[in-house]
Amino acid sequence: MKQNLIIVKVGGAVVEDADALSSLLADFAGLPGYKILIHGGGRSATELSAKLGIETKMVDGRRITDAETLKVATMVYAGLVNKNIVAGLQARHVSAIGLSGADCDTIHSVKRPVKDIDYGFVGDVTSVNAPFLASLLEQNVVPVLAPITHDGKGQLLNTNADTIAGETAKALAAYFKVTLIYCFEKPGVLMDPNNDASVIPYLSYYDFPRLVDDGTISGGMIPKIQNAFNALNAGVSSVLITSVAGLNSLSGTTIAL
Amino acid sequence: MKQNLIIVKVGGAVVEDADALSSLLADFAGLPGYKILIHGGGRSATELSAKLGIETKMVDGRRITDAETLKVATMVYAGLVNKNIVAGLQARHVSAIGLSGADCDTIHSVKRPVKDIDYGFVGDVTSVNAPFLASLLEQNVVPVLAPITHDGKGQLLNTNADTIAGETAKALAAYFKVTLIYCFEKPGVLMDPNNDASVIPYLSYYDFPRLVDDGTISGGMIPKIQNAFNALNAGVSSVLITSVAGLNSLSGTTIAL
Repeated sequence: MKQNLIIVKVGGAVVEDADALSSLLADFAGLPGYKILIHGGGRSATELSAKLGIETKMVDGRRITDAETLKVATMVYAGLVNKNIVAGLQARHVSAIGLSGADCDTIHSVKRPVKDIDYGFVGDVTSVNAPFLASLLEQNVVPVLAPITHDGKGQLLNTNADTIAGETAKALAAYFKVTLIYCFEKPGVLMDPNNDASVIPYLSYYDFPRLVDDGTISGGMIPKIQNAFNALNAGVSSVLITSVAGLNSLSGTTIAL
Repeated sequence: MKQNLIIVKVGGAVVEDADALSSLLADFAGLPGYKILIHGGGRSATELSAKLGIETKMVDGRRITDAETLKVATMVYAGLVNKNIVAGLQARHVSAIGLSGADCDTIHSVKRPVKDIDYGFVGDVTSVNAPFLASLLEQNVVPVLAPITHDGKGQLLNTNADTIAGETAKALAAYFKVTLIYCFEKPGVLMDPNNDASVIPYLSYYDFPRLVDDGTISGGMIPKIQNAFNALNAGVSSVLITSVAGLNSLSGTTIAL
């Protein structure tokens, strides 16, 4: 029988607030069994770019990663945020290891082809080194993944952390019974965006199109839930969308096929 | 019989020049057997600090690491420099993994006690996780160490890369026959600082005080060579001081007891 593995993805906002981070790390450290933490770090990177006078370039509402922006992302995600999380977990007696996609070829990607938009140094995931991650887990090491990948030719690339979480969950589903948890600002998918008590406890593949059509689910939540369905279709056992506060009780919105 | 392990320490200047870095990575990738790369990254950090308006604080000629400087060091050393080296080695088919001291508790340190000078967030190495590094090497993984350590209580600390190289070499001498190579700007320890052809091929413990007394060896070279003797006294087999160009031929100054 496969062992349980919990993969937790946390957004940038969480890791930038010392109290929120401390609470997250305590809850994460308390999760039983095998686990992986995947983090973003968006706002710190934006702030550092601003201080350095690097313009955040947007095309059709999508952020473009030029060479300077990639440097900032590498410094902030793989350096500052990743190592502070790892040090915080070590202090909580978790044998954590921070990894970018380049480290042991953990996440291999290809630079996104230019069609209508040139996204710059953005990588689309092509493979996850599941045997390596599984071997770390079996040695009771907890991987902490930064959203920086590489193309195998020496080029680092910026990759969406939600995507990394989904791809990692899918790749490890062959080895473990995987629960994928997306932590964001809200306690789950809400019926009413202004009411945090209106969490939809259970969201199925059949309900989803209707809730998109009537506008209940919109914006960045749509690709997040699509990622969740993709993961479930690829063998991931369970996907939960919650807040960091919900990590403790594993409450929130469970996505199901 | 113990297997050979080569530990190479490279300075900041090397990793900041794309051509020099490429040449270093090619030579390092070509070294036979088990190996570890340890890097600095000083000038990039100084440049980034300057751009961010962070003053480089010096007391009695020693750099002080305040909270903002530590952030910059963590971003540059453990992020930008470390991950670019790892991606470059992966492109050369080396299964490299980048590590700060916090990752798997690789390098544990204690914040330097305040005596005459408060160095700020500077860590003095207390232990090296030699079993973990040995296990990586035996899996044919090549560790790439950034000069950032941690105190086990969640605090990252800035640590001299030469010291990390020396302590890592000493800790691994129990497992391997260790050759420690310090790469810097010059082809070795020079009799005449203005003549790169004046490399001292062989420097013994008996010659050293005399060469310091007569001024042949001075400045930053003195602690470097003292580190080398400490490493040899602790079981390291051989220490070589050379340039990046010397890595290929393993020429330079051999330090011996």
